[in-house]
Amino acid sequence: MDSLTLIAVASIITAGLTTSFGVVGPSLGEGRAVATALTSLAQQPDASATITRTLFVGLAMIESTAIYCFVISMILIFANPFWNLAIAQVTGT
Amino acid sequence: MDSLTLIAVASIITAGLTTSFGVVGPSLGEGRAVATALTSLAQQPDASATITRTLFVGLAMIESTAIYCFVISMILIFANPFWNLAIAQVTGT
Amino acid sequence: MDSLTLIAVASIITAGLTTSFGVVGPSLGEGRAVATALTSLAQQPDASATITRTLFVGLAMIESTAIYCFVISMILIFANPFWNLAIAQVTGT
Amino acid sequence: MDSLTLIAVASIITAGLTTSFGVVGPSLGEGRAVATALTSLAQQPDASATITRTLFVGLAMIESTAIYCFVISMILIFANPFWNLAIAQVTGT
Amino acid sequence: MDSLTLIAVASIITAGLTTSFGVVGPSLGEGRAVATALTSLAQQPDASATITRTLFVGLAMIESTAIYCFVISMILIFANPFWNLAIAQVTGT
Amino acid sequence: MDSLTLIAVASIITAGLTTSFGVVGPSLGEGRAVATALTSLAQQPDASATITRTLFVGLAMIESTAIYCFVISMILIFANPFWNLAIAQVTGT
Amino acid sequence: MDSLTLIAVASIITAGLTTSFGVVGPSLGEGRAVATALTSLAQQPDASATITRTLFVGLAMIESTAIYCFVISMILIFANPFWNLAIAQVTGT
Amino acid sequence: MDSLTLIAVASIITAGLTTSFGVVGPSLGEGRAVATALTSLAQQPDASATITRTLFVGLAMIESTAIYCFVISMILIFANPFWNLAIAQVTGT
Amino acid sequence: MDSLTLIAVASIITAGLTTSFGVVGPSLGEGRAVATALTSLAQQPDASATITRTLFVGLAMIESTAIYCFVISMILIFANPFWNLAIAQVTGT
Amino acid sequence: MDSLTLIAVASIITAGLTTSFGVVGPSLGEGRAVATALTSLAQQPDASATITRTLFVGLAMIESTAIYCFVISMILIFANPFWNLAIAQVTGT
Amino acid sequence: MDSLTLIAVASIITAGLTTSFGVVGPSLGEGRAVATALTSLAQQPDASATITRTLFVGLAMIESTAIYCFVISMILIFANPFWNLAIAQVTGT
Amino acid sequence: MDSLTLIAVASIITAGLTTSFGVVGPSLGEGRAVATALTSLAQQPDASATITRTLFVGLAMIESTAIYCFVISMILIFANPFWNLAIAQVTGT
Amino acid sequence: MDSLTLIAVASIITAGLTTSFGVVGPSLGEGRAVATALTSLAQQPDASATITRTLFVGLAMIESTAIYCFVISMILIFANPFWNLAIAQVTGT
Amino acid sequence: MDSLTLIAVASIITAGLTTSFGVVGPSLGEGRAVATALTSLAQQPDASATITRTLFVGLAMIESTAIYCFVISMILIFANPFWNLAIAQVTGT
Repeated sequence: MDSLTLIAVASIITAGLTTSFGVVGPSLGEGRAVATALTSLAQQPDASATITRTLFVGLAMIESTAIYCFVISMILIFANPFWNLAIAQVTGT
Repeated sequence: MDSLTLIAVASIITAGLTTSFGVVGPSLGEGRAVATALTSLAQQPDASATITRTLFVGLAMIESTAIYCFVISMILIFANPFWNLAIAQVTGT
Repeated sequence: MDSLTLIAVASIITAGLTTSFGVVGPSLGEGRAVATALTSLAQQPDASATITRTLFVGLAMIESTAIYCFVISMILIFANPFWNLAIAQVTGT
Repeated sequence: MDSLTLIAVASIITAGLTTSFGVVGPSLGEGRAVATALTSLAQQPDASATITRTLFVGLAMIESTAIYCFVISMILIFANPFWNLAIAQVTGT
Repeated sequence: MDSLTLIAVASIITAGLTTSFGVVGPSLGEGRAVATALTSLAQQPDASATITRTLFVGLAMIESTAIYCFVISMILIFANPFWNLAIAQVTGT
Repeated sequence: MDSLTLIAVASIITAGLTTSFGVVGPSLGEGRAVATALTSLAQQPDASATITRTLFVGLAMIESTAIYCFVISMILIFANPFWNLAIAQVTGT
Repeated sequence: MDSLTLIAVASIITAGLTTSFGVVGPSLGEGRAVATALTSLAQQPDASATITRTLFVGLAMIESTAIYCFVISMILIFANPFWNLAIAQVTGT
Repeated sequence: MDSLTLIAVASIITAGLTTSFGVVGPSLGEGRAVATALTSLAQQPDASATITRTLFVGLAMIESTAIYCFVISMILIFANPFWNLAIAQVTGT
Repeated sequence: MDSLTLIAVASIITAGLTTSFGVVGPSLGEGRAVATALTSLAQQPDASATITRTLFVGLAMIESTAIYCFVISMILIFANPFWNLAIAQVTGT
Repeated sequence: MDSLTLIAVASIITAGLTTSFGVVGPSLGEGRAVATALTSLAQQPDASATITRTLFVGLAMIESTAIYCFVISMILIFANPFWNLAIAQVTGT
Repeated sequence: MDSLTLIAVASIITAGLTTSFGVVGPSLGEGRAVATALTSLAQQPDASATITRTLFVGLAMIESTAIYCFVISMILIFANPFWNLAIAQVTGT
Repeated sequence: MDSLTLIAVASIITAGLTTSFGVVGPSLGEGRAVATALTSLAQQPDASATITRTLFVGLAMIESTAIYCFVISMILIFANPFWNLAIAQVTGT
Repeated sequence: MDSLTLIAVASIITAGLTTSFGVVGPSLGEGRAVATALTSLAQQPDASATITRTLFVGLAMIESTAIYCFVISMILIFANPFWNLAIAQVTGT
Repeated sequence: MDSLTLIAVASIITAGLTTSFGVVGPSLGEGRAVATALTSLAQQPDASATITRTLFVGLAMIESTAIYCFVISMILIFANPFWNLAIAQVTGT
């Protein structure tokens, strides 16, 4: 098992797990926020503008944590510095 | 066990686990959001337009986290850069 | 243990686990949504049209996450690109 | 341990685990839906037609996720493409 | 450890685990459904016919998921295609 | 470690675990059903006939899942087809 | 490590775990049933006869699942067919 | 590591774990039953005779499951048939 | 690693784990019982005699399960029959 | 790795784990009891004498289970019979 | 497996896990905070300025813990001192 | 890996884990007690003297369980009898 | 695998895990505190000064525990005494 | 892998885990205490002096358990007696 293969395997597995584990929290948190927004809308329809605006800001912040994980997965698959160096070494050799 | 096989096995397992683990959170979050929407509809039928619109926006954002996982699984199966390079190496050799 | 067997075993195990783990979330989420729909129907029978329509849209979105897992399992069993390549290699050899 | 045995063992174990793990979610979700249906019936006997119809549609969708798992187990035991190919190879040899 | 023994051991362990893990969900779900039925009966004795009928339909659907697991265990013990083939191979040899 | 010993050990361990894991769900579910029955009896003593009858039917169905596990344990200990075949092989040899 | 020792060790460990894991569910379920009985007695002292009778029937059914585990442990220690056969083989040899 | 030592080590570990794991459920269940008894006594002091009697019967049944585990531990330490046989074999040799 | 050391190590580890795991349940159960006793005393000071007596009987029964574990730990450390026999063997040799 | 080192390592690890795992339950139980005592005091200041006395008796019993674990840790570190014997053997040799 | 590869693999895996595990807490915490903010807005629309300001300060502090994890992942991928030193060693050699 | 190193490594790991695991329970228990104290103070400010005194006694007892763990960690690091003996042996040798 | 690599790998993995595990508690705790602050503000807008001040002090104390973990990660990456010594040894050699 | 490296690796890993695991409890406990303090302030603004004082005393005691863990981590990194002795041995040699 040469170095190139090992780095590839580690990158594949890590990329998958990072995103799959990383979306558990945000999706549950967003589900809770959306659910409460609906309850609040039903309870106080007059404040729908404020509620909707606050909801979207909150969702954006929660979604950002999922984006962090997705970005790291993409970096590991398409812009992996360790992989690039290993390729350069193999090609240079 | 040559490099090609190893990368294939890692891709298969990771693709499966990424999607299966990654849908747990979104499906629970969506279930919660839908459930609350139904409660709110029953409680305040007059606000159904606002409630439905907010629900769909929320579901779309929650679903997006599941899409991230599905996209990564698809990339690992059908557009895997590590696999393509390994194939190229084997073919080139 | 040759390459072909290894890929077959990994595909079998992953296909099973992907679906079995992947339906836990959707089934619980759907159970919650259906349960709330029934409560809402009993509480506000006049809004049954809106409630039923929203319920079915929600169930469809939750079910979609289970479909993702089932699709990946089917791909791994019946349209596995890694397996096809390995078969081609063995046959070609 | 030859290839045939290995695939057989993997299929047996995966078939069992897929169904046993896969029915946990659906059975809990159905239990919740049925329980809420009974509560709703006791609370609003006049809406029993709507409640019962919605319950059966919901149970069918939840049961479908359990069916997915059972189908994959059956495919792995009785229509396993990897096993068929391995048998063909052994017989052909 | 020959092939026959290995398949036998895998079948024994899988048969046991499939049923034991698979009855956890159904038994809890049935317990919940029965408990709610009793509460509903105490609350609305006049609707006992509808409640009892709905309860039995629901129990049947929940029990069906436990039956799936039991069926797979029985298949693995008494009608195992992999075992039959292995026996045929040994006998044929 | 010959085949006979291996099958015996697997049967012993599986028989024990199957029953011990398998009674967790039914016992909790029955505890819940009995507890609710008592609450209902205290709340509506006049409906004791209906409540008791429904309780016993429910307990029977929950208990049936525990029986499944116990039956499989008994089969593995006293009527194990794999063990019988292995004994026959050893004796025949 | 000869066969006899291996079967003895497996029987010892399984016997202990079967009973220790198997009493968790029944003891919790009985605790719940007893607790509810006491609440019901305090709430409706006039129905103490019906409550007590139902409680004892329920406790008996829950206890039966613990008995299953204890019986299997006793069988494994004092009437183990695998052990008896192994002893017979050793003695016969 | 001879047979005698192996059986001794297995007996020691199993004896300890059986009792320590086995008392978790009964102690929690008894705690719940006692707690409810105190609540009921404070709520309905006149029914103290019935409550106390029912409590003691219930505690006895819950305690019995802990006794099962303790008995098996004692058997494994002081009346272990496997150990006795092994001793007899060593002595006889 | 001779037999004596192995038995000593197993006894040390088991003695520690038995007591540490075994006190989790009783301490939580006692905490619950004491907490409920205090609530009941605040609610019904006149019944303090009955409440206190019932509490102490209950605590004694819960504590008894912790005592079981402590007794087994003490036996394993200071009156271990397996260790005594091993010592006798070594000394006798 | 000689016997002396092995016993020392086992004693060190067990001593630490016994106390650290063993204080989880008592500390949570005591926290619950103290919390309820404060609630009861705020609700019924006149019964403070009875409440405080009962609280201290209860805390003493809960603390006793933590003491069991601490005592065993101390025995394992400072009065370990297995270690003493091993030291005696080494010195005697 | 040379040093360079080992450090690369460890950095890849750690970078992924750090972010994926690290966003679970913040996303759930933010979901809770946003949900409560919406409830409070619906309940007291007049205090929306204070509520929104406090919410954003709180979200910033919770988000900061997720940022810590993301920063460490970025350091491990793009500014890893251990990797830099290893590269220098390899290049220098 | 000589004896001295092994004992040092075991002491280091155990010292850390003992304290880190051991403070989980006490900190949660203290948090609960403090939280209830604040609620009680807000509800009954006149009883603040009694409440505060009882709180401090309770916190002291809960804290004592954390102290046990810290003491054992300190003993393992700075007054480890096993380590002292090993040092003596090495020095003496 | 030389010493330098081993220390580097251990530092990388520990640095990542320390921060990712260490922020779970603080982020959840802060989420709870912020959520309650919002509820309190909506309930008692007049006390906003006191509530906000207490909230910030509390958040600072909770955040401090996350800072501890971040500091240790930074020390392990940028000021690791073990790594510095190892580098000195290698350079000195 | 020489002794020095082994002790260094164990110290690094333990230092990180001790703090990261050790802050989970305190941060959750502090979050609960702060949250209750805010609720109490909103409910009884007049008692803010007593509430704040009690809160700070409580936070200090809870924080102290986190400090224990941090202190042990610092000792393991900067004042490790085992490491100092090992260094002395290596230098002395």
